[in-house]
Amino acid sequence: MSASTLRHDQRQADQLRPIQFEIGVAPNATGSALVSFGQTRVICSAMIEPKVPGWMRQQGVKGGWLTAEYSMLPYSTLDRKSRDSSRGKLDGRSVEIQRLIGRSLRAVLDLDKLGENTLWIDCDVLQADGGTRTASITGAYVAARLAVQKLIDAKRIPENPFRDSVAAVSVGIVKGRPLLDLDYLEDKDAEVDFNVVMTGSGQFVEIQGAGEEATFTHEQLQSLLTLATTGLKTLSAQQQTTLARALLTTTS
Amino acid sequence: MSASTLRHDQRQADQLRPIQFEIGVAPNATGSALVSFGQTRVICSAMIEPKVPGWMRQQGVKGGWLTAEYSMLPYSTLDRKSRDSSRGKLDGRSVEIQRLIGRSLRAVLDLDKLGENTLWIDCDVLQADGGTRTASITGAYVAARLAVQKLIDAKRIPENPFRDSVAAVSVGIVKGRPLLDLDYLEDKDAEVDFNVVMTGSGQFVEIQGAGEEATFTHEQLQSLLTLATTGLKTLSAQQQTTLARALLTTTS
Amino acid sequence: MSASTLRHDQRQADQLRPIQFEIGVAPNATGSALVSFGQTRVICSAMIEPKVPGWMRQQGVKGGWLTAEYSMLPYSTLDRKSRDSSRGKLDGRSVEIQRLIGRSLRAVLDLDKLGENTLWIDCDVLQADGGTRTASITGAYVAARLAVQKLIDAKRIPENPFRDSVAAVSVGIVKGRPLLDLDYLEDKDAEVDFNVVMTGSGQFVEIQGAGEEATFTHEQLQSLLTLATTGLKTLSAQQQTTLARALLTTTS
Amino acid sequence: MSASTLRHDQRQADQLRPIQFEIGVAPNATGSALVSFGQTRVICSAMIEPKVPGWMRQQGVKGGWLTAEYSMLPYSTLDRKSRDSSRGKLDGRSVEIQRLIGRSLRAVLDLDKLGENTLWIDCDVLQADGGTRTASITGAYVAARLAVQKLIDAKRIPENPFRDSVAAVSVGIVKGRPLLDLDYLEDKDAEVDFNVVMTGSGQFVEIQGAGEEATFTHEQLQSLLTLATTGLKTLSAQQQTTLARALLTTTS
Amino acid sequence: MSASTLRHDQRQADQLRPIQFEIGVAPNATGSALVSFGQTRVICSAMIEPKVPGWMRQQGVKGGWLTAEYSMLPYSTLDRKSRDSSRGKLDGRSVEIQRLIGRSLRAVLDLDKLGENTLWIDCDVLQADGGTRTASITGAYVAARLAVQKLIDAKRIPENPFRDSVAAVSVGIVKGRPLLDLDYLEDKDAEVDFNVVMTGSGQFVEIQGAGEEATFTHEQLQSLLTLATTGLKTLSAQQQTTLARALLTTTS
Amino acid sequence: MSASTLRHDQRQADQLRPIQFEIGVAPNATGSALVSFGQTRVICSAMIEPKVPGWMRQQGVKGGWLTAEYSMLPYSTLDRKSRDSSRGKLDGRSVEIQRLIGRSLRAVLDLDKLGENTLWIDCDVLQADGGTRTASITGAYVAARLAVQKLIDAKRIPENPFRDSVAAVSVGIVKGRPLLDLDYLEDKDAEVDFNVVMTGSGQFVEIQGAGEEATFTHEQLQSLLTLATTGLKTLSAQQQTTLARALLTTTS
Repeated sequence: MSASTLRHDQRQADQLRPIQFEIGVAPNATGSALVSFGQTRVICSAMIEPKVPGWMRQQGVKGGWLTAEYSMLPYSTLDRKSRDSSRGKLDGRSVEIQRLIGRSLRAVLDLDKLGENTLWIDCDVLQADGGTRTASITGAYVAARLAVQKLIDAKRIPENPFRDSVAAVSVGIVKGRPLLDLDYLEDKDAEVDFNVVMTGSGQFVEIQGAGEEATFTHEQLQSLLTLATTGLKTLSAQQQTTLARALLTTTS
Repeated sequence: MSASTLRHDQRQADQLRPIQFEIGVAPNATGSALVSFGQTRVICSAMIEPKVPGWMRQQGVKGGWLTAEYSMLPYSTLDRKSRDSSRGKLDGRSVEIQRLIGRSLRAVLDLDKLGENTLWIDCDVLQADGGTRTASITGAYVAARLAVQKLIDAKRIPENPFRDSVAAVSVGIVKGRPLLDLDYLEDKDAEVDFNVVMTGSGQFVEIQGAGEEATFTHEQLQSLLTLATTGLKTLSAQQQTTLARALLTTTS
Repeated sequence: MSASTLRHDQRQADQLRPIQFEIGVAPNATGSALVSFGQTRVICSAMIEPKVPGWMRQQGVKGGWLTAEYSMLPYSTLDRKSRDSSRGKLDGRSVEIQRLIGRSLRAVLDLDKLGENTLWIDCDVLQADGGTRTASITGAYVAARLAVQKLIDAKRIPENPFRDSVAAVSVGIVKGRPLLDLDYLEDKDAEVDFNVVMTGSGQFVEIQGAGEEATFTHEQLQSLLTLATTGLKTLSAQQQTTLARALLTTTS
Repeated sequence: MSASTLRHDQRQADQLRPIQFEIGVAPNATGSALVSFGQTRVICSAMIEPKVPGWMRQQGVKGGWLTAEYSMLPYSTLDRKSRDSSRGKLDGRSVEIQRLIGRSLRAVLDLDKLGENTLWIDCDVLQADGGTRTASITGAYVAARLAVQKLIDAKRIPENPFRDSVAAVSVGIVKGRPLLDLDYLEDKDAEVDFNVVMTGSGQFVEIQGAGEEATFTHEQLQSLLTLATTGLKTLSAQQQTTLARALLTTTS
Repeated sequence: MSASTLRHDQRQADQLRPIQFEIGVAPNATGSALVSFGQTRVICSAMIEPKVPGWMRQQGVKGGWLTAEYSMLPYSTLDRKSRDSSRGKLDGRSVEIQRLIGRSLRAVLDLDKLGENTLWIDCDVLQADGGTRTASITGAYVAARLAVQKLIDAKRIPENPFRDSVAAVSVGIVKGRPLLDLDYLEDKDAEVDFNVVMTGSGQFVEIQGAGEEATFTHEQLQSLLTLATTGLKTLSAQQQTTLARALLTTTS
Repeated sequence: MSASTLRHDQRQADQLRPIQFEIGVAPNATGSALVSFGQTRVICSAMIEPKVPGWMRQQGVKGGWLTAEYSMLPYSTLDRKSRDSSRGKLDGRSVEIQRLIGRSLRAVLDLDKLGENTLWIDCDVLQADGGTRTASITGAYVAARLAVQKLIDAKRIPENPFRDSVAAVSVGIVKGRPLLDLDYLEDKDAEVDFNVVMTGSGQFVEIQGAGEEATFTHEQLQSLLTLATTGLKTLSAQQQTTLARALLTTTS
C-alpha cells in the first residue's frame, strides 16, 4: 500500500482525527473537559482534596500527590460493558491505564508546589473508538491545568505547579503501514501498537509499545516514534490554544 | 411564609426547575438522553442484551427483563465522591435508587413483549443538585423509549412494549411550606421529603415519603401529592414532546 | 368480592394477624424481643456501643446515632436462603430494609439525648410469612425502648430519648380489595403493596408504596392509608401494653 | 484445690450444665432444635436441597453431601459482634467451627443413602457462654435426625442414613483441675482446652485439644478424655430421649 | 498386615521420611528455612514488624504477637491450585492451618519478651506430598528461632523469648495399621488422621485427630500418640542440630 | 562520571548481573526454573490445563491460551510485603506485570499449536533486588519451553508451539549515565527506567519506558535501546545453553 493511500475514514497516514475540547462539562469539578479524538470521547475532571495519601504521611514525604482513576461507562461500547463496581474489582486493563495517566501527569508536575493536597484526576469514557488512554491523558492535562488555575486564583496555591504540558497519542503498524492515532477498526488489526506520551517542549515522558502476538524491528520503532512526534506537536498546540482561550475567559 | 413568596432561585412553590433532554449523548447506546432538572444533570442510557437473568431461566419465567444501575460520577458533587469500585461495593443509597428506577420502568413495561432480552438502564449523575433519582427515572424513560424504537425499526421486537410513559418528581416540606422539585439547598433543609412516580395517564407507580428525623400529618401528605401531580403532568408532556421530535427525526 | 368475605386465613380485610412480643429472647442484648405477626417471627435486639460512626466525628456532628441491620436467617424460608456472608455482600432488598428500619426509629429518637453512643438494632427473621420489615420495625421499637430503660436505670443516659413510639404495617390491594397486614400468600398476589410507618400519636413517619408491575389511583391510595392507620393504632397499643408490663417487672 | 470443691456455678468437676432441646423452633426448616448447654443457646436447623455441590458432580462422586454453616448472632455476646456480611468475610474461627460441625456429622452419616441431596446444617448462636461449637454439634445432630425422618416419612429417601448419633463436649484444665463442659468464665482461664466428638456407641469422631499458650502432659490428656467420655454418655442419652419423644409425637 | 511389612516407599511403620532443613533460602527474611519431609517441601520464613495488631493496642494487652500465614503455591500440586488472591479469599483449609501454626509457636513463646513487635511467620508450600501443616510448624520454628537470634544479636530484644522448641508430625491408621508421617498416597487412604504438636521437652501442644468419615477407639488413639511421640523426638533432635550448626556459623 | 567508572557492585555500565537458571525447582510443575539476576530470584513455573478460558469458548476462538500470574512472596523484600489474598485484591503493579509477562510469551507462541490447552505461567519472587519483571519473563520462557517439551514427549501436542525464544532486561539512566540491568539501589535513583522484551532472533516484543517524575530525549532513548539489545543477546544465549543441557538430560 502506498503512503499516499487514504485510510478508511479518509485520513492521511500522519493525520490526527478531529480533536476537540469542551471546557466545563462537569461544573462541580474544579476543572473539567470533554475531550474528543474523533468518535472517542472522554470526560476528564480534576478535583482537589486537602490531604495526601496515607503512605506519604507514613513515609514523611513532603508536598502533594496526583492520582488518576479511569473507567469506561457501560454505554461507551456497542456491547454494554459491565461496571467495575458490579464485578467488585477493577479489571487489569483499567488498572494499567489509570496508573499510566497518573505517571504522565506527575512527570510534568512539581508536587512540592501543590502543597499538602491531592489532585484527583477522573477520566470516564463516554464513547470508545480507539485511543481512549491517549485521549484521557491529553484531556486530563487540560482539566488539571484549569483546576490549578482556580486554586491559584483562590490563592490556595502560590504558583502554577506544572513545569510543562503533556499529551499522548497512539501510533501503530497496520497491514505493514505506520499510522497515526488509530481508531478502533485500525487498532484491532494493528500488528504493532504504541502509546507515546510527550511534553509540550518535545521530551518523552513514556513509551509503551508491543507487538500484538507479533514482534517489530528497530526501523519500525523509529518510524513510529517520528509519526508520534508529529501528532504530539499538533495536540500540544491545541491544548495551549484551548487553555489560553479558557483562562482568558475566566480571568477577564 | 406566604404561598406567594419566591424560592431562593426565584421559583414559585409549584414550579419545576428548567427541564431539558439532550438526545443521543452516548451514541454507542441503543438510546440515550442527558436529562437536566436545573443544575441536576444525569446521563441516561438504554441498551439491549439478548439474554435474561439466570434466575428467570431457572424459574422458567417467560419474557424479558429490565434492570437499572445508578451511579454518581466522582465529580458530580463539590466534594469528590469516591467510586463504588474503589470501595469494592455499592453504597446503600445507590442500591435503593437503582431498585426504584428498575421498578418504575417495569411498571409501565410489558415484559412479555420484550422477548428474551434484557433492557439495561444506566443512570450516571454528571452534576448533582437534588432530585437525582427523579431526574434519572424521567430521563431513563426517554432513553428506553428511544432504544425500544430502534429495536422495532430493526424488527428485533414486533411492537412497543411500553403501555404508558413514566416520570418522577420530588416534593417536600421546607420550613413548613410544601415545595415542588427540591434542589439541594432546599432538600437538605426539608422536614419531609417525597418522591412520587407517576404514569403519563396520571396513575401512581410509586410513592416514597419520609420525615427527615421528623414526622408528618395526613393533611401534609395530601398537599404534597397534589403538588407532585401538578409537576408530573408537565414532566410527562415534556417527555412526549421530546420523543415526538426525536422519533420524527430518526424515522424521517 | 364483597368486603365481608373472609380471607384465606379467616381474617377480616381490616384485621391484623395475631401479634405477640416475647421479651428478653436474647439475654446478652441490652434489650430484645421476639415479635410475631402471625407466622412471621423476627428476633429484634438493641445494643449500645459507646462511640459514634466515623462520619459523625469527621463532620463534627454532636449527639448519638442509631443504626440497623436486617437479615433473613437461612431457615426462615421454605427454600433455604443462602447467607449474605457466603455471597460476600448484602442483597439490595436487605440494604433497603435495614435503611428503612434505621430511619423509622431515628424519626422518633432525640439523638442528642443519646450522648456519644450508637444504638445498634438487629433484626433477624426466624420465620418469614410476609411483612418481615413491618414486624421488624414494630419489634425493634420495643427492643430499643427496653434497652434505653436499662441505660437510664444504669444512669448512663439521663432521660428517655424517644419522643414517641413507632410501629409499621403493610397494606395492599389483592384481587382489587384493600387488605391489612398481608401474609406471604396475599403479598405475592398483591397488585399494590404499601408499607406505612406511624408514630404512637398518629403521625406518619414513612410511606412506601408501589404497584407490582402495575399502577394505582388516588382513591386506592386513600383507602390503603385508612386501613393502615386502623392497624397501626392497634399495634401501637400492644407495644405500650407490652412495655408497661415489662418495665414494671424489671423495675419492681 | 480438692476434687470435691464446687465450681463457681455450683457444679461438680464432672457435671454438665443443664442440657435442653427445644424442638421445632424454626418451623420452615425441615428439622430444627434450640439447644441449651446452660446459658449457651444455639439455633440448629437442617434443610434439604435436592442437588449436590459442583465439585462432586465434576469429580463424579456419587451420593449426597452434608455441609454446615456456623454464625454468632450479633447479640449473642455482651459486646455486639459485627456480622460476617458487614466485614465481607467469615472470620477464621467461624470457618474452623463450621468445618468441624460438618465433619462430625458426616462421620456418622452414610452419604450414599442421602441420594443426590445436600443436607444443610445451620447453627446460629443466640447466646454465647462457652462451648458454642460443642452445643452446635450436639443440637445439629438432633435437627438433622428430625429432618431425615421427615424425608423418610415423605418417601424422599428410603431409610435412615445415620449409622449412629453424634455429640460433643468440651473439657479443660482450669487452675490445674480437669473440668467438664466449661462455661465462658472457666474457658477464658483454662490452661488446656479440648473438644471431643463421640458417637452414641462410644467411638471417637474427633479430638481437638490445645494448650492456651501452654502445654500439657500425657497424663492430663488421659484424665480429660475420661471426663469427656462421661459427659458424652449423658449427652447422647438426652439426644435419644428427645428424639424418641419428638418422633413419637410426629408419627402418632 | 504384619507390623514388619514395609510401606509403599520402603519405610517402616514408625519411620519418618528423610527430613532436611535448608537454612537461609529467603535472604531478605530475618530467618528462613526450606524444610523437607520427603517430597513435601515448604518455604518457612520469619520476619519482625515493629508494631502489634490493632486489637492488642485497643485491649491494652502488653508484649508482642506472633501471626502465621500459610499458602500452597500454585505449582505445589500436580493439578495447578488457583491462588487465594484470584479467588479473593482464603479457603477454609488454609485458614485452619495458619491458625494452627500460629497457636503452636505461641505455645512455646514468651510474648512479653518479644517487646512491642509482631513476629510474622510465612509458610509457602513449594511441593505437596502430605503433611504440609506438620512440616510447616517444624520448619517455622527453625526460621523463627533464627530470626529471634538475629534480633538478639542486634540487641533489638534482650533474650531468647522461646521457652522450648516445637515440632509436629502426622500419624494415621491406614488399612487398619498405625503409621508415622503419612505421605499423600497414605493420607488419602487413611481411616484416621492425627496431627500432633509437641515441645522439645516432650509436652503436648496440640492434638487434632479425626476419623475420615469414620470413627476410632480409645486403643487406636493410644497407639497413634505413641507413634507420634517417637517421631517427634527425632524431629526435635534434628531441629536442634540444624540450629546449633546455623547459629555457630552466623556468630563465629 | 566517565563511562568506564565501575558501578557500586563493580559492574561495567553494560554488564549484566550474574545470571543463573536452576531447573526443576518445583517438581510438581510441568516445567520450572528458579532464575537469578544477581540477588533477584524468581520461581517460574509452567503448567498445562486441558481447557481454555470462558471468553475463548464464548467467542469461538480456536487454539490454546497462555496466562501468567505474578506475585511477590511476603519475605522477598526487607520489609514484609502483605499478601494479595490478605488485602483481598491484587495491587495495580502486580496486575501490570502479570499482563506484561503474558503478552511477552504469547508474542512468540503459536497458540493454534497448543491445542485446546491453557499454559499457566506462575512467577513468584523469592528475593527482590530490582528487575523482578524482566527476570520473570526470562525465567518463564525457560519454564514454559521445558513444559512444552514434556507435552511433546508425552505426545499431548504434536510439535513445539514456540516460534522463537523471548527474554527481557531493564535499562535506565542513573545520574545521567545509561546502565544495563539495574539493581534495586540503582533503580530507585534512576531518572529514566526502561524494560525491553526481545526475541532470540533480535526482534522487539515490547518496550516500556518512563521518566520517573522526569522526561527524556530521543538520544537517551537510542542509547538505552542499544544497551538493552547487548544485554538481551547474552540472556538469550544463556537461555539456549540452559535448555540445551536440560533437554539433553531429560531425553537421554
